[in-house]
Amino acid sequence: MTDDAPTDAEAACFEAGIKFGSLYHQFAGTPVSPDSADSVATAMEEAIENQPHCREVSVDVREDELEAALAESAADYTELTGRFLEVEIVVADGGLEVVARMAMEDGYPLMQLASIEGRSSE
Amino acid sequence: MTDDAPTDAEAACFEAGIKFGSLYHQFAGTPVSPDSADSVATAMEEAIENQPHCREVSVDVREDELEAALAESAADYTELTGRFLEVEIVVADGGLEVVARMAMEDGYPLMQLASIEGRSSE
Amino acid sequence: MTDDAPTDAEAACFEAGIKFGSLYHQFAGTPVSPDSADSVATAMEEAIENQPHCREVSVDVREDELEAALAESAADYTELTGRFLEVEIVVADGGLEVVARMAMEDGYPLMQLASIEGRSSE
Amino acid sequence: MTDDAPTDAEAACFEAGIKFGSLYHQFAGTPVSPDSADSVATAMEEAIENQPHCREVSVDVREDELEAALAESAADYTELTGRFLEVEIVVADGGLEVVARMAMEDGYPLMQLASIEGRSSE
Repeated sequence: MTDDAPTDAEAACFEAGIKFGSLYHQFAGTPVSPDSADSVATAMEEAIENQPHCREVSVDVREDELEAALAESAADYTELTGRFLEVEIVVADGGLEVVARMAMEDGYPLMQLASIEGRSSE
Repeated sequence: MTDDAPTDAEAACFEAGIKFGSLYHQFAGTPVSPDSADSVATAMEEAIENQPHCREVSVDVREDELEAALAESAADYTELTGRFLEVEIVVADGGLEVVARMAMEDGYPLMQLASIEGRSSE
Repeated sequence: MTDDAPTDAEAACFEAGIKFGSLYHQFAGTPVSPDSADSVATAMEEAIENQPHCREVSVDVREDELEAALAESAADYTELTGRFLEVEIVVADGGLEVVARMAMEDGYPLMQLASIEGRSSE
Repeated sequence: MTDDAPTDAEAACFEAGIKFGSLYHQFAGTPVSPDSADSVATAMEEAIENQPHCREVSVDVREDELEAALAESAADYTELTGRFLEVEIVVADGGLEVVARMAMEDGYPLMQLASIEGRSSE
């Protein structure tokens, strides 16, 4: 028996990671202002929800952080980056449901698994 | 006299080019389906309108081409690329107004200046 | 007891997914030709190897596919997309090693886990 | 007579702008460290040189700025952004040659035309 084959739960966690990396690196760098924050958040949600097994994506552009960044700047917009984002992604495959989140930790946009429900061994 | 300094009209055309390159390379590769086409189009418009001297951006995701591409595919979404886009960008600076457009020509998403109004020499 | 907390192996698979999504959506859309294929492949490898727990990234730009695409086109370059890529990523965390790969399947760039070694329960 | 048609020099400046916007928004967000700076710089140069009428692209990743940013951070890499870049692009079309540059000004990565040589009216 080969015990190095992925379990269904591991495969679902891999899928959740793909969605996070896709979301971040597709949209990081987008010009963003308080006025355009909602439209990029909606586009990020709907774009990534197209990907396989992606049940739901919730993107919150943190307008407080955005306004703090713009207050220090001569410009009235900036580039979208992790500092301005809170994201939750739910992946569902078969009976499995994986929830993962991104938020800032020590100045780095940390992506983490929150929970995995429905493992077949449970 | 140095005659190689840019004119105001040339600078405005450079600005229009920046907006087109930005729009295309920021959003190319985004997962897109008929259901999510409107949200990515709106995000593209509002994101690029943040850039300096950008008066208006109009993005049309060609849903006919999108549905034709999906009909040939096992997937129900694809990646955003020039084949699916028609774009017009208007840059205004001082009394100058530059209009530029992108549409497919020979299978290549050709970006072109359409008009420049208000040159100081006129 | 909450049995929905992620295992170390599930967390490592999530990390491997992040690397794949990042690599793909950062670099998809890059102008590429047979002459520039090596430099983008090297940049992709070295960029993603910066990410946490990423032991090794191997990117092969499929020059046969690239030349086939260019033969059908009036242009001498095209946009980087999954059709032109074969990728292997190795993530290592503690005693765990996750190997994942991307290759075309039915016209879609399928990213899959290949193996997970070193689970603590083994 | 329509005096709003673009001149050859204006069209060349538009092309130069496209290259700058493409370069910036394709590669902004790439994970970068002092060790991987050279490979991303080379990939940026060779990718954009594929585009029409692009004679030469020179990208310098400012390792001093990169090390200063990393000294303030818990991570050993960061995201590529304008703060870390100096870029020169030369576009040539017919007898025209346009030189444009990007460098930081007031915390914003300013892209500017430097010179245009060979206008037909000269």
